[in-house]
Amino acid sequence: MIVNNSLDEVKKRESALKIIKEIINDNGRDSLYDVTGLSGGFIANDDELDLLETYVGPAIFEDELQIVGKEHLGGEKVLAVNRTSSGILASILALVNEGDHVSHFLAEFPAHPSIPRSCAIVGASYDEFVDIDKFTIPENTSLVVVTGSTMDHKVIDEELFKKVIDMAHEKDIPVLVDDASGARLRTAVFNQAKATELGADLVVTSTDKLMPGPRGGLMAGREELIDEIKVKANQFGLEAQPPLILAMVNGIKNYTEENLVKAISRKEEFYELLSEKYEMFEKTPTGVMVSEDALKNQLEKLNVKTELSKKDCCFLWAMVLLKDFGIITIPAVGMPGASATIRIDLSTQDVIDIDLNELYEKVDQSFERFLDLSQDVEKSKELIFY
Amino acid sequence: MIVNNSLDEVKKRESALKIIKEIINDNGRDSLYDVTGLSGGFIANDDELDLLETYVGPAIFEDELQIVGKEHLGGEKVLAVNRTSSGILASILALVNEGDHVSHFLAEFPAHPSIPRSCAIVGASYDEFVDIDKFTIPENTSLVVVTGSTMDHKVIDEELFKKVIDMAHEKDIPVLVDDASGARLRTAVFNQAKATELGADLVVTSTDKLMPGPRGGLMAGREELIDEIKVKANQFGLEAQPPLILAMVNGIKNYTEENLVKAISRKEEFYELLSEKYEMFEKTPTGVMVSEDALKNQLEKLNVKTELSKKDCCFLWAMVLLKDFGIITIPAVGMPGASATIRIDLSTQDVIDIDLNELYEKVDQSFERFLDLSQDVEKSKELIFY
Repeated sequence: MIVNNSLDEVKKRESALKIIKEIINDNGRDSLYDVTGLSGGFIANDDELDLLETYVGPAIFEDELQIVGKEHLGGEKVLAVNRTSSGILASILALVNEGDHVSHFLAEFPAHPSIPRSCAIVGASYDEFVDIDKFTIPENTSLVVVTGSTMDHKVIDEELFKKVIDMAHEKDIPVLVDDASGARLRTAVFNQAKATELGADLVVTSTDKLMPGPRGGLMAGREELIDEIKVKANQFGLEAQPPLILAMVNGIKNYTEENLVKAISRKEEFYELLSEKYEMFEKTPTGVMVSEDALKNQLEKLNVKTELSKKDCCFLWAMVLLKDFGIITIPAVGMPGASATIRIDLSTQDVIDIDLNELYEKVDQSFERFLDLSQDVEKSKELIFY
Repeated sequence: MIVNNSLDEVKKRESALKIIKEIINDNGRDSLYDVTGLSGGFIANDDELDLLETYVGPAIFEDELQIVGKEHLGGEKVLAVNRTSSGILASILALVNEGDHVSHFLAEFPAHPSIPRSCAIVGASYDEFVDIDKFTIPENTSLVVVTGSTMDHKVIDEELFKKVIDMAHEKDIPVLVDDASGARLRTAVFNQAKATELGADLVVTSTDKLMPGPRGGLMAGREELIDEIKVKANQFGLEAQPPLILAMVNGIKNYTEENLVKAISRKEEFYELLSEKYEMFEKTPTGVMVSEDALKNQLEKLNVKTELSKKDCCFLWAMVLLKDFGIITIPAVGMPGASATIRIDLSTQDVIDIDLNELYEKVDQSFERFLDLSQDVEKSKELIFY
């Protein structure tokens, strides 16, 4: 095993950032293809940038965020947080006490680790479910969480979504929806309603996921709950700072469903190309992916033996994709606990118009290179901890 | 009492931001005088702004931050956090367990609330001291905190600073220095050494305090500890995002001790002016201030009776300063738990060259207006919750 814990994951991320820097310095930004679907952006004009001062900036941008944020997410009030994870922490600090319980429903395991980790911090018990028939809300529950779309872009069924909300509300328990990418994926691609329209009390989305905003989190919901969460966010420094808020406003304004819709049709073509040679690819709503298990099965089918764990295989291939082909995927640059699934999102600006045969060649060659490297643990380690 | 709890403080801050927006819209940015000493800045050129994307930005800017951050703070490794408070939370999550103890030494009460609050979250006991003879480090202590300069800019004695570090190190306990403004105030104005040079294992500073950086926190110290803290920061979304990191790099590069040194001589002149009429002003290293108690005493001396608490008096005067004179002070715009002391920092860009007689007139007139308003609780409330 090469990557064994959160600290290793941080080191691996540092390696990836170092490689990205080398590529930019040597060949420029155009040699990179960010297919994470998290590439986000930072849109701001000069007048806006002049206003970016500690106490002046928020006065202007927070007001505007209330307007565009509510259009995007619904709800009575909006709160900008530093990341979706910090919004989840602030919510749990505000609404969940020691000895309480949190029940979480999602379409597919694994859940995002920030939810159980935040529960552990406040000393609350936690349970997660993918089967509605097994879903329970014990008496000491103070918060129900629903994930709108998982890290691997598996989207919840809207009827189950409503059912979970109803079950929570029957017991007067607020519902927080982790709609990190779901706020756009569910609505634009699956024609579902906004979480607040389905009755959720709180929702949080990532402003860099499938939209041209900065890495950051945007919460919306019932004013009284948002106010409580805002207190905790301000106390512990979990809120978004003015530069992020500015870029969130412009990210939302510049978001269109067009790229998502275009990616849906292109992913079919890309999937066909890949599947002529490989069995490991699966479709996602806006691209393709290879899970840990699928990669392992592909290696077995090819009779390739390696001492690396299946997770390390994902990390290694992601690093090869990055170093030799400039293709940025989440296993290379993700935060600790991020999914190891290699996902290629076709809705991102860097590949929205790329020739799919050209992209196929890069992916195919990177896989061959990965196969070679997987035979040498020392060399694999050198790349992962570059 | 008008402002009773953290939620009221959040509402009060929202009022202040609303007023700031009105002033900018009606009369432009030049009608505002930010004397918080926290006005910070956001310096970035167009090429840098183009690089502000989720995974590309950090690769470039984090590397540069390692260089300029270590020059500013010393230490083996640097970590950018969303705010000093979130850096403190990340440190305590990483280094302090349930049942542990944290001892905190500072020059003067009150301590910044983020330290005891973070201890409460992990279930650690906490004690704070201003008297070195009473300072103790119990057996179950896992972290010693030292505040370099308090919220009211009271600076620690360097000999006591070293003594506390020695006491902690005798027991092999790491020392975290909360050097929010102190990293510059202590060094530039009091000629003290950097916290890391004095032997501290970790230090955190606010990149907007007395320097032209963004609101945010910068940590430095022993690599092994920084790595542990980084894991917690990444897990809970406490780290600084790329736009902040970019602006931190440029804020540090553009920091000079010149404004601080100029403010030191000007504050004497300003203090003389104010003290001809008022008794409530005290000098700070780079300006003047009025504490809750000093304001209360001044009111008593003037035979002014009010139903407002002394804290509410500070908030009210701060709101008058803002609304009628465009002068931004911390009691108006501060986060929950920020000091209610009205501090006028003369080192900020907005007043670095202002005619001190002109500034005196504004402060004097605002105080008269505040005295009137303090007789009417309803009207006071209307301004504080504007």
